[in-house]
Amino acid sequence: MRGFSHDEFRQRLDKAQFLMREQGMNLMLLTSEPEIRYFSGFDSALWQSPTRPWFLLIPVYGEPVAVIPSIGEGVMRRTWLSHIRTWPSPQPDDEGISLLKKTIQEMVGSKAIIGLSKGHESTIRMPLQDLETLMAQLPGIHWVSCTPLLRTLRMIKSEQEIKKLRQVSHIASHTFTQATDLFHIEQPLNAAFRSFKIALLQQGADDVPYLVGGAGQGGYSDVISPPSEQAIESGDILMLGTGASLDGYYCNIARNYAFTHASDQAQHAYHTLYQAIEMVLASLRPGVSCAQLYQTMQTAIESAGGSTEGLKRRMGHGLGMQLTEWPSCIPSDRTILRPNMVLTLMPNMLLSKGKLMIHAETILIHEEGVELLSLRAPPELPIIE
Amino acid sequence: MRGFSHDEFRQRLDKAQFLMREQGMNLMLLTSEPEIRYFSGFDSALWQSPTRPWFLLIPVYGEPVAVIPSIGEGVMRRTWLSHIRTWPSPQPDDEGISLLKKTIQEMVGSKAIIGLSKGHESTIRMPLQDLETLMAQLPGIHWVSCTPLLRTLRMIKSEQEIKKLRQVSHIASHTFTQATDLFHIEQPLNAAFRSFKIALLQQGADDVPYLVGGAGQGGYSDVISPPSEQAIESGDILMLGTGASLDGYYCNIARNYAFTHASDQAQHAYHTLYQAIEMVLASLRPGVSCAQLYQTMQTAIESAGGSTEGLKRRMGHGLGMQLTEWPSCIPSDRTILRPNMVLTLMPNMLLSKGKLMIHAETILIHEEGVELLSLRAPPELPIIE
Repeated sequence: MRGFSHDEFRQRLDKAQFLMREQGMNLMLLTSEPEIRYFSGFDSALWQSPTRPWFLLIPVYGEPVAVIPSIGEGVMRRTWLSHIRTWPSPQPDDEGISLLKKTIQEMVGSKAIIGLSKGHESTIRMPLQDLETLMAQLPGIHWVSCTPLLRTLRMIKSEQEIKKLRQVSHIASHTFTQATDLFHIEQPLNAAFRSFKIALLQQGADDVPYLVGGAGQGGYSDVISPPSEQAIESGDILMLGTGASLDGYYCNIARNYAFTHASDQAQHAYHTLYQAIEMVLASLRPGVSCAQLYQTMQTAIESAGGSTEGLKRRMGHGLGMQLTEWPSCIPSDRTILRPNMVLTLMPNMLLSKGKLMIHAETILIHEEGVELLSLRAPPELPIIE
Repeated sequence: MRGFSHDEFRQRLDKAQFLMREQGMNLMLLTSEPEIRYFSGFDSALWQSPTRPWFLLIPVYGEPVAVIPSIGEGVMRRTWLSHIRTWPSPQPDDEGISLLKKTIQEMVGSKAIIGLSKGHESTIRMPLQDLETLMAQLPGIHWVSCTPLLRTLRMIKSEQEIKKLRQVSHIASHTFTQATDLFHIEQPLNAAFRSFKIALLQQGADDVPYLVGGAGQGGYSDVISPPSEQAIESGDILMLGTGASLDGYYCNIARNYAFTHASDQAQHAYHTLYQAIEMVLASLRPGVSCAQLYQTMQTAIESAGGSTEGLKRRMGHGLGMQLTEWPSCIPSDRTILRPNMVLTLMPNMLLSKGKLMIHAETILIHEEGVELLSLRAPPELPIIE
């Protein structure tokens, strides 16, 4: 089945309303795709168009109210929501703002505390001048950040969410096992990317919103640019990292391949990153902090003689409805890992001057330990002849 | 060649600075992917991650300054920009804000007018609380909307941009000509979507960030949901609309197909929408407004006995670095069409109760008329046996 049962959304709402009561919030105003999808199940490619804002109001008691462009009404009516108000969009002079204001006033009156997702890693997806207009017209409203609340909820995945994350991780893992068929010497890097995207779709991914990587003699340096037309050569190391999606949930896995041969240095680096993840799999338990998780991988790399100097990259992050979610595996993140969190582990190190190696697997935290959601990469750097 | 020459960016900057002088702006602070790419050429899939904000400062005189996470430094250094400042991200307690504030103060002092893209169809891509902090720490700054300025620039495409838009429109057009190979009876709708995405990639698209459509007996009603697993049947009409991308530029084309047979009603509707576009191609000249363009298509539909009652959909929009851009083909949009604007025409009408038909082609406005960038759809509703 695509999507989720109504029970799932009811539980999300119940938990949100519990936290809203604890934090003294009367209402939350949500504007972004993942936030609105999280509470409604509304799923549409139409978010790609920047023209129309979408609003979801979550009251501390009672049912959510969607305030949306009329083009989305039919689809929203098929979600579990029953309170839907629409305006004909585009309507630049009043892009839903008077309807939103009226709805807020009906729900909470003129004095209330409203949560808006203002915190780290969030964006208000509506024109700022429309938000300013709304705020000016609702002078009795005290606006607070509901990012911590949403983060608390979304960091812990439900069984239904985990099922989707496991499924999409398997799709990408299986696609990587076809590497020897997909990648070859003399293949331009952009053709390798294209082959991999096609293979992901053939394996069952809905989309490939994210694919990054790099290739070069003895290692790669740039892993965030679109792929060049430069051909893969003997002696190259290729890395691909993907965020394929299934039913709106992401995987995030990165794999490395050497062509015809690999230096001792590259093999050692691969082994080091592999071992860094082994250390996590063997030792991680709920109750550990993200900072400690970072330290486990950092220590594994350093004790094998590896260096991360100057890389300034995190070693992992949360995963779910977005390619990257809270928390971050960085020294300053004190978030305590808890059961049903899903994380991408992304140990990385210098391979040689200006070149790096990155490896990524996805894990699920259990009561008693850790489960891999991705299929484990081979223990030695795979060599494509 | 991927990307653009440095001249292209220099010209964009010159035009922006001319308009900034006219409008009395000292600086623009840009935060969104298309805005930053427009002035820098910085292109990366990393925007998919919500973790890191990116900033570009455009002064009224002199060179732009990028204030970005260090993970992007190498790639930004390969653009035409030479002023790049970085901070190690993620760093939730200060996600670039102190560096951004310092840079702004060095560029304009403590009193200045700064443009921020606050208007219709725009989003500030940074946490709102970070923007509030920045504004509080820069009390002498007057913040104004630079959305109209950016719109003026981006609506008129350069020759280099038009080349990319033509190329990606051709890729999608050619892919649609394979319809009889790609789509067939008993094929689940999601399999049809997948086949089409794969074919777009094989034809040379970099990505398929947007694909919507619908299928049903005698017509479709929902065109914005993810595709179901329901099989295509004899008598169905299928519509697919795509925004494939090439080098960061979009196409937007929609096509209809009937399976084994089509009702007179469906054939008539198809012909009506085809003729609505013919009317535009034959009559459109620079100087006409978007509202008049809307009226041309609306009149063509009504005079053929068609109805748009209750649909509340626009009949087209701008196209470029985003799937939809300004202006909108709606009765209230008085934007005057000018040479080198690129528009998606999207006439649509009711087919029967609750069912609609949508057709879309992409056009370029010339001094003397209109050029199709998409390859024209067949004049009669194609029937797939």
